[in-house]
Amino acid sequence: MAMSSLIEYEQASPEVRAVYDDIMATRRTDRVNNFWKAIARDPATLRRTWQSVKEIMTPGALDALTKEMIYVAVSVTNQCGYCIASHSAAARKAGMTDSMFAELMAVVGMANETNRLASGYQVEIDEQFKVG
Amino acid sequence: MAMSSLIEYEQASPEVRAVYDDIMATRRTDRVNNFWKAIARDPATLRRTWQSVKEIMTPGALDALTKEMIYVAVSVTNQCGYCIASHSAAARKAGMTDSMFAELMAVVGMANETNRLASGYQVEIDEQFKVG
Amino acid sequence: MAMSSLIEYEQASPEVRAVYDDIMATRRTDRVNNFWKAIARDPATLRRTWQSVKEIMTPGALDALTKEMIYVAVSVTNQCGYCIASHSAAARKAGMTDSMFAELMAVVGMANETNRLASGYQVEIDEQFKVG
Amino acid sequence: MAMSSLIEYEQASPEVRAVYDDIMATRRTDRVNNFWKAIARDPATLRRTWQSVKEIMTPGALDALTKEMIYVAVSVTNQCGYCIASHSAAARKAGMTDSMFAELMAVVGMANETNRLASGYQVEIDEQFKVG
Amino acid sequence: MAMSSLIEYEQASPEVRAVYDDIMATRRTDRVNNFWKAIARDPATLRRTWQSVKEIMTPGALDALTKEMIYVAVSVTNQCGYCIASHSAAARKAGMTDSMFAELMAVVGMANETNRLASGYQVEIDEQFKVG
Amino acid sequence: MAMSSLIEYEQASPEVRAVYDDIMATRRTDRVNNFWKAIARDPATLRRTWQSVKEIMTPGALDALTKEMIYVAVSVTNQCGYCIASHSAAARKAGMTDSMFAELMAVVGMANETNRLASGYQVEIDEQFKVG
Repeated sequence: MAMSSLIEYEQASPEVRAVYDDIMATRRTDRVNNFWKAIARDPATLRRTWQSVKEIMTPGALDALTKEMIYVAVSVTNQCGYCIASHSAAARKAGMTDSMFAELMAVVGMANETNRLASGYQVEIDEQFKVG
Repeated sequence: MAMSSLIEYEQASPEVRAVYDDIMATRRTDRVNNFWKAIARDPATLRRTWQSVKEIMTPGALDALTKEMIYVAVSVTNQCGYCIASHSAAARKAGMTDSMFAELMAVVGMANETNRLASGYQVEIDEQFKVG
Repeated sequence: MAMSSLIEYEQASPEVRAVYDDIMATRRTDRVNNFWKAIARDPATLRRTWQSVKEIMTPGALDALTKEMIYVAVSVTNQCGYCIASHSAAARKAGMTDSMFAELMAVVGMANETNRLASGYQVEIDEQFKVG
Repeated sequence: MAMSSLIEYEQASPEVRAVYDDIMATRRTDRVNNFWKAIARDPATLRRTWQSVKEIMTPGALDALTKEMIYVAVSVTNQCGYCIASHSAAARKAGMTDSMFAELMAVVGMANETNRLASGYQVEIDEQFKVG
Repeated sequence: MAMSSLIEYEQASPEVRAVYDDIMATRRTDRVNNFWKAIARDPATLRRTWQSVKEIMTPGALDALTKEMIYVAVSVTNQCGYCIASHSAAARKAGMTDSMFAELMAVVGMANETNRLASGYQVEIDEQFKVG
Repeated sequence: MAMSSLIEYEQASPEVRAVYDDIMATRRTDRVNNFWKAIARDPATLRRTWQSVKEIMTPGALDALTKEMIYVAVSVTNQCGYCIASHSAAARKAGMTDSMFAELMAVVGMANETNRLASGYQVEIDEQFKVG
């Protein structure tokens, strides 16, 4: 049996279908990404993960585009191919232009570089940045 | 000799002082973070890194606050203590409120979780996310 | 010349064959995974790595299944595609059911999330967790 | 204002107190770890994270000890100091002996090594491990 | 529109062509790797990245081969498939033999293992290794 | 009981003392680092790890200094504080000058940056870098 077999809507249980329906309604689309169809093999994980993602990605103090770009920044840092592909697409749908993408990549690259310079040079935290 | 001895302004060469001066002028502050004082042990790395950071962090298609939050997202993902402390401070200075910080952390945490679900379930990239 | 050319049993030196034989005997199988055939390009690494893996993966205070699931947890966290595929298969062979896999993924995902919340919120270690 | 100021029970809002109460009741203890007191700065994250952790860490197909050891495996791989300290303590409380800890570390170390050998040697996934 | 469309020399702007020309001249080759053709979508990132790579990879206190092997060590640790492939090729071009590659992989693997043993056992830094 | 209690020579079993003796003889020193004293809590891990480190770090196709610098490169990439401190000291002992350290850090930083640019731009591997 394949590890990542996808649960399509037709074969899904009512519990899984309810999540798929909410995903499509929330995102105003008529398709469900492979990610959800894969984790649907465990309905509890599907439900909990969707619940959390829905709550977290709703625009609040940060708008939808900023949130999607942060998602891309993390995914690129972790080298997660699937997540880079899917969240770059989501960020573009949320309004990310070519220039925004270029600056996002530049910051992510630079941060990954200076993270290592800071640890390699064993830099002590400045007094004023210390936690109280 | 200590690995991370910091180069203070007073002891710095003219080349290093010029970079410190530009950092303080650009950031409208009268102090230089330990990070710069540490990598100043190698003036070439100091100059090149500052040049790149200055160019990349200048507001463009993305504003200063968004860029600093992306920096925090990468630093948290990489577990770089120094960078989390210094860039969280920088993000607050650029206008990050408590609510923004809370949402930033929520997205970073969630992205790190779903990055692993995607790879653990070995999810195939959806046709429409594929690169041409 | 290809980087990952695999050393098949037929072309292998006696030293490499001896390791292949021990792998197949220990694992009660008649095939050797690509991983071993790839690192066999360096017989010293092949021998040392197999020796260590054999010693470490032998059931002891932890049983074979638990050890394989820990291997999967690390591989997923590191986003190592090959290792996720091979160790998920090994864990299933050792008795991992669909429910166990689902719970394993849920814990791995959650741990990756809270690891970042802990560092992002710069949480100090509780006194009672401190090392003496 | 300090980044990681902890929200103590006495100063907590009713919403936060309710989570603290549930944590203490579920874990049969009279104290709440710094992790929860730190993320309590954002009650929504506190509630959602506790909800997920509670659901995921409940014994099911995997027992409590196995789940805590997987948590440690991920935290060690990610080099999260706080999480290593707190989850090692939790694993010991759940029954992890010195021998189990020793074997856990050995597997985690080995997996991190072979993850890199697999990617460095660019090993192709074996046909029989491929996802359908 | 594809995310990673490559900018070929023929379609490139004069600014991008100038960088391509310098890459080919510096590396004494008549082709430009996909990496550069991909980031050329953002000429500023192309120029800055090439400038930095050129400056950093020039033989100095460390020779070209040592620098390329360090590049491979980082790329393998980060599990970056593209970078492993391209920098392994570059290291071979700079003189890396099969034996050197084998020892490089062995050190990278071992370092990734002991990094986790050190953090998992929560080892305190020895007095004499402390930074002044 | 503390997690990382160190096993000093005086209290060590004959099996552990034999490893300590070999470490000191091999490294021509009269002290044993905390790392070994910590993992000595599990004599099997101590013996196996020392055996592997000794075999791998012996000068061969790569000299001792190059191997130590590769160790530092991995440790910095993984943000392992203990390992950065101890292997930077070991590299200096093996002959790493300030200039070499500076160039090592520059390469490690740059590689961490371009690793992310490569994955973020989803660069396809060039035909000639492909594995056969």
